[in-house]
Amino acid sequence: MKLLEERIKKDGVVLPGNVLKVNQFLNHQIDPELMYKMGEEFARLFKDEEITKIITVESSGIAPAVMTGLVMKLPVVFARKHKSLTLVDNLYTSDVYSYTKKVTNTISVDKKFLTSDDKVLVIDDFLANGQAVQGIFNICDAAGAEIKGVGIVIEKSFQEGAKIIHDRGVRLESLAVISSFDDNQVHFEGEE
Amino acid sequence: MKLLEERIKKDGVVLPGNVLKVNQFLNHQIDPELMYKMGEEFARLFKDEEITKIITVESSGIAPAVMTGLVMKLPVVFARKHKSLTLVDNLYTSDVYSYTKKVTNTISVDKKFLTSDDKVLVIDDFLANGQAVQGIFNICDAAGAEIKGVGIVIEKSFQEGAKIIHDRGVRLESLAVISSFDDNQVHFEGEE
Repeated sequence: MKLLEERIKKDGVVLPGNVLKVNQFLNHQIDPELMYKMGEEFARLFKDEEITKIITVESSGIAPAVMTGLVMKLPVVFARKHKSLTLVDNLYTSDVYSYTKKVTNTISVDKKFLTSDDKVLVIDDFLANGQAVQGIFNICDAAGAEIKGVGIVIEKSFQEGAKIIHDRGVRLESLAVISSFDDNQVHFEGEE
Repeated sequence: MKLLEERIKKDGVVLPGNVLKVNQFLNHQIDPELMYKMGEEFARLFKDEEITKIITVESSGIAPAVMTGLVMKLPVVFARKHKSLTLVDNLYTSDVYSYTKKVTNTISVDKKFLTSDDKVLVIDDFLANGQAVQGIFNICDAAGAEIKGVGIVIEKSFQEGAKIIHDRGVRLESLAVISSFDDNQVHFEGEE
């Protein structure tokens, strides 16, 4: 998505450890019109998949997910993130390790909001090592829900995440695919 | 907002301690079309206030805030919530006590995203004791930003939050105002 790539070039900040900060429009300050255009694009890409529900993880996945839900007229569920969890009888849970923050969180979805009738589109802001997506897959599996696709705002193709999704045979669509941060610059896949 | 009141009556669950759970459409599962209609309503109410920026707190404030930003064509900043914080030179911070969860979190906004030129509309999902709104007020004061209004999805008028806002002379608009949970039922202000 050209508009998104341009915005990343303009406002993204490359930090040590292959971390890209996009606090200007996605992870802290949000550009709602850009989010809506991303929602339209995800809706176009997944329109034939008979999706019944969109799932994301709090907090940065919520804006793109809710815009996709607005365009597709579908409910959105955001998995909650916890440091620790007790009393989980009514929840599907999965542990998610964050390589950036070097902590393990537990994510959860209330059993009421995900069933074996659901065909799920997973939306998230970043795909790097794929831990968050794997956590959502675990939760969908526990619920017996069918995973129809994964829509990612920014994928780092040189990390493991895409492989986890492809190995499972799930369709992956990323709006911007970063191939490297060589020389502290953002390089997109297919770029000259 | 009639549509919202009806949805609360239909899907809201009243819990002990004057807690209303609206996980069905706002706090865990989100109804994006309802969020958009709420965004239109906030935009209508605050259209003459020359707002430059919308501020909310993660996570449940994000969906209504981002829809309001979409309609008003304004950027949205969500304050981050932390258990504890070190290295805060670049952040405005404030402590926020949650009566529901009985914990104090620190919320923060990057100094880059809030300045003395800003005229702020605060959007949040609930107004009860007003601690989250007070935290955002503190952050706006530290930045020298002007607070033009507060837009709340669900206000519990029998708690202290509204008083904090009115005492400061700030305009408050709530889309649903709950006057009591007598007999474990939701009663709206002005209802027969």
